[in-house]
This record gives sequence, structure tokens and C-alpha cells, in this order.
Amino acid sequence: MSDTITLPAPADFHVHVRQGAMCELVTPHVAAGGIRTAYVMPNLVPPLTKTEAVLAYKNELERIAPGVEWLMTLYLHPEVTPEEIRKASKAGVSGVKSYPRGVTTNSSSGIEDYGVYYPVFKAMEEEGMVLNLHGEVPSDDEKNISVLNAEKHFLEHLRKLAADFPNLRIVLEHATTAEAVECVASLGPNVACSITAHHLWLTIDTVAPQPHHFCKPLAKEPRDRRALQDAVKSGNPKFFLGSDSAPHPSAAKAPKISEEGELHSCAAGCYTSPYLIPLVATLLESFGALDKLQGFVSDHGRSFYKVPAKKGQELILRRPATAIKVPAKLEGHGNEVVPFWAGRELGWEIAQ
Amino acid sequence: MSDTITLPAPADFHVHVRQGAMCELVTPHVAAGGIRTAYVMPNLVPPLTKTEAVLAYKNELERIAPGVEWLMTLYLHPEVTPEEIRKASKAGVSGVKSYPRGVTTNSSSGIEDYGVYYPVFKAMEEEGMVLNLHGEVPSDDEKNISVLNAEKHFLEHLRKLAADFPNLRIVLEHATTAEAVECVASLGPNVACSITAHHLWLTIDTVAPQPHHFCKPLAKEPRDRRALQDAVKSGNPKFFLGSDSAPHPSAAKAPKISEEGELHSCAAGCYTSPYLIPLVATLLESFGALDKLQGFVSDHGRSFYKVPAKKGQELILRRPATAIKVPAKLEGHGNEVVPFWAGRELGWEIAQ
Repeated sequence: MSDTITLPAPADFHVHVRQGAMCELVTPHVAAGGIRTAYVMPNLVPPLTKTEAVLAYKNELERIAPGVEWLMTLYLHPEVTPEEIRKASKAGVSGVKSYPRGVTTNSSSGIEDYGVYYPVFKAMEEEGMVLNLHGEVPSDDEKNISVLNAEKHFLEHLRKLAADFPNLRIVLEHATTAEAVECVASLGPNVACSITAHHLWLTIDTVAPQPHHFCKPLAKEPRDRRALQDAVKSGNPKFFLGSDSAPHPSAAKAPKISEEGELHSCAAGCYTSPYLIPLVATLLESFGALDKLQGFVSDHGRSFYKVPAKKGQELILRRPATAIKVPAKLEGHGNEVVPFWAGRELGWEIAQ
Repeated sequence: MSDTITLPAPADFHVHVRQGAMCELVTPHVAAGGIRTAYVMPNLVPPLTKTEAVLAYKNELERIAPGVEWLMTLYLHPEVTPEEIRKASKAGVSGVKSYPRGVTTNSSSGIEDYGVYYPVFKAMEEEGMVLNLHGEVPSDDEKNISVLNAEKHFLEHLRKLAADFPNLRIVLEHATTAEAVECVASLGPNVACSITAHHLWLTIDTVAPQPHHFCKPLAKEPRDRRALQDAVKSGNPKFFLGSDSAPHPSAAKAPKISEEGELHSCAAGCYTSPYLIPLVATLLESFGALDKLQGFVSDHGRSFYKVPAKKGQELILRRPATAIKVPAKLEGHGNEVVPFWAGRELGWEIAQ
């Protein structure tokens, strides 16, 4: 087996780079992890519902990390009208992200019903913008909907959207279940699916005792992880990397008791950006899919998003001469983030 | 509705009171929570596999909290022979607890195969000792066994033991699934089931983001919680309180990074002892089962275990005149434990 791998311009089609001091810390990590093109999520506070706000955010990211191609998104919301879509498209905004209300970080402005957005989706279809779906329905005790089956219940919405908008490119983000993989594979070429690094490794057994493994959607059963790994191994171009790398201050990952004695939950998200491509290479090798690395991190997503790799942006990976451990924490700008796989060894590194 | 409830000598048929300084802190909480009889788990370090060790532990508990009737158990282990069973029975030990290997706190000495213990179970049957089962099989990626279905997979072992030992009293501890409730209800009168307070309230949605809600077995779907609540509401005497109250130092409930940069998991367990009966009353009232409180916390378990309530041990609950919140933490003897429901209001209190 070769000791180096050359990849044409790896891309991460789902990344959170936050705001303020946290943005200053984490934005440079995207390039450090081997990423040349990053598709940026709009769930800021307040959410990015206006083209101007998206462009201002893009300027900020370009200031902090000018070497990365930042692809931008709007947050699906009543303020996002068909007119706003046309304006955003002209301004180079790539897509629109939909969050069901309340299911993850900063999603309290999320949608409850897709019907009202059909004119928006029509405009997106005409403009060639991509619809990115956080594929979970809200939990509902009466209907036995929980974080375990929230994604399965969402698939009927995906099927309906795919049928109603056959020319709208739709991405089911961060799939976590065998059913989601099967559903996406069965749908037309307008539907694709991002897969995170952490969901290729976690199951519910390693999530339950470890807040640093808690993310939405939750990692599920071994059979689900196997389905994600098999999707990567298949080489099916519908499946590509979207890391959902989502930094939280380490304090937000420990249980907290307020002065009033209230117990607060831990924040959802795994942080993989700083060493993303070495991690993905290590994981793919672990389940015999290293030969699919280029398709998964470069070709498939770029082809779906119509963002070809540029020349001179190749990334070279090599096997480390000495063991490289993921650091216990990343610090700076007054923040501290514990990365996913802290303390574990990576099988690949980026050649300097 | 009445503002007071008189209960004949509440009993907790599954409690962890630990060792050393933690034991000094938590043992008095059992009586404070309204419990007159407590069935004590043997998963100490080292596990209690000898009658002498069990008796020494009982002496310790009686020294710390003489007002409680402590019912003692052995830890199922190769050292527990039929001879040891007869010795333990003579010494007043009530039962034997079985932990599948590696599934919960201090279970690394747990069993892997019940077949080798059939002579032990035979002796227990003859002596009238109770077999207490932690009803989970170990996780196995290849077989798609995870913390989500580990209990369901255990039920075949329960069915086989119940059939092979029709006169051995067997308790499936801390049931968490609809399937477990159904299985126990379908088996003969020699099989019963303990239910914790926390599993009557938690589901996976409130466990995943909160280490203080992480316990084994994991709380599962809303349908499972409903099945547990319905088992209580049914008044079926096979179902009774076993709190599995399991204190951990609060530091063990936060993610930790060692000096080597390794990420450590949070400990499994919810701590309910200090206000157990008020909590159970509050929960049962919330799902319309307050009329089943006496059966659940006193009659059913005592009848199965043949430990009648003593006169003069009644517990009187009343509605608090002013709101009573579960404290944010319980401190003492160098330990600090965050209790279950910290910061939430209880609907009942123990009348002084």
C-alpha cells in the first residue's frame, strides 16, 4: 500500500464556523484540516435569513481564512422569499438550509411545515440553488417520535420534496440510519447525502456516556454505522463528506447547574475540522474503503454541487513517521474546544 | 384529592450504597427518602462474593443507619458455590445479583454464561433465595447488539431461567422496555420486575444531552416509558419499586481528559435515594397512578420478597405548603453528588 495519497482539492459540504471569538479560533482550522472548499451553515444568532447578512459573514470568513473557498447558505425562514432567493443567487449564495424547529443548535427559528415554502423551492429550482435538509422531525412523545427515529420519520418529507421538485438539488445532511442511506440511494439524481466523519465511527454505545460524542442527529445502532460505511465503500456518488464539524466551548459539554439549581443539558456537536481529512482517511482505511477516499472527500460532492476542483489545490497525505495524536484541546481567542477523537491516533497526516 | 397519604413501610428493592466515604454520605439518605427496608446491591470493589463479606458490609450499614432493615445480596461469580449459597441463606442473605460482564458500574466480574450456575440456582431455589438479574447482554457490533436492544436480547435468558427453575424467585431489575414489561407479565408468579423512579420519567431524548440522566439500562423510547407507567397503573403485583439509586461523585458525571490526553466516559447512574418516595408519589400522580402508590412502593415488593411491613413503620406523605425543590447537590464526607431531578419541584414531602 502506498505511503502517500494525492487528493484533488478536498471539500467539506457541511461546516459550522460560528461567530465572534469562536469564529476567529475555528475558521483557520478548516484549511488546517485539508479543506479547500467549505460549505458554511447559516445557524448563527440571529440566523442568516438575508443575502446581505450572508455576504457580510462571507467577508468575515475570507478575512480570517482567505485561502478557503467559502460557499454560503441562507437559513430557511419566512423572511426567505422567492425574491430573496433570486437576489441571493445573483450574489453567489449556493444554497438554503432547513432546520426543523428546535432539533439542534440555534434551530429555534426552524421550519414546521414545508408546504408554505413551495414558492421558495420553486425559485431555488429555477436558480439552481441547493436545498440542505437537517433530516429530523421534532420529538413527540404521543407519536413515539424520539431522537432515535426522528430521521426515519423525516424520510417521508424527503421523498415528497424529491418528487415535487425533481430538478431541485436536495441534500439530506449528516445521515445516520440505514433507512436514510437506502432512501437516498433509491431517489433520483437530484438527491444526495452528506456523511460526517464522526458518524462513521460512533454508535449509541459510545455516545451515551460521552458528551463530546453527543451530536444531532444522534449516532445510532451498529447496523446504521455499517450502512454509512457501506455507502462510502459503494463509491455511489450520491454520498460525500459533510463533516457537520460543530465546535462548542468545552464548558458547554459538561453538565451545569445554574444558581437557581437548574440542571442544564450539554451542547450537541462533534468538532473534527482541524484534522478532518487525516481523520477521514484513517476511518476509511479502518473499514477497507481507502480507495474511495478521493470520491468521498473531493469528486462526489464537487460534482453534485458543480464546484470543480481547481488546479494547484491538491492535498497530499502521508503516513506519519511518528504517531500523531489528536490534541486534548484547541485553545485561542478566549475559547477552548475539545476535538472529536481527542487523544486517539491518526493514521495519516497532511504532508507539509 | 387527599392532602396526605399513609403508606405501610415503603421498601426499595434495589439500592446502591457504595463503600467508604461515599457510603457514609449516602446510606443515611435511604431513610431520609422514606425507605424502611432496602435491598442492597453487591457490586463493590471487590464484589461481595462471600457470606462473610456481605455480613461485614451489613454491619457497616447498620452502624451508619440503624433504622433501616438492610436486605443483603451476593454477587454471582464462580466463587459463589451451592455450599456458599446454603451458608449465605443460613446467615440471612436474601438474594444473589447477576451482572452480565462489563455492562455497568463494577461489573467486570460479571457472568458470561448461566449454564455453569445451574447448581447454584438449584441451591437458591431450595433455600428460597431470590435471583436478581441485570437484564442486559453485552453489546456486540457484529450482532447489532447495542445499549438500545441489550435488554430485549436478554429476555430469552429470562424466559429460559424462569422455565428451568419454576420455583426460583427471579427479579428482572430496572426494566426499561415495553418488551420487558410484556415478558415479565407473561411469565409465572416466580418472576417479578423492579422499576426505577427515573425510568418512569426519562426517555432517550433527555438522556442523550445530560450525563446526570445517563444510567444502565439506558432510558429508551416514549413507548417504553409508557409501558413502564402502564405496568404501575395496572396494579399488577409483579411490578414494584427498585430505585437503582446509584450515586457518583459529580466529577465522574463530567467528561474528563487525562494527562495523556485520553477522553474518559461519564459514570452510569441516577441518584434518587434522598427523596425517593416523594419523587415516586410525584411521578405516579403525574400519570394518574397515585392510587397505585402503596402497591408499588410497599405491598407488591414485600409480598414477592416475603418481607411483611412492620407495624409502626408507616410513612406519611403530605402536599408541601411551599414548593420543595430537589437540591442542586448533596455534600459530605468529602463527596458531592448531584441528585436526579436537581432543581425540579416535588409535589409531595414526608410529614415530619
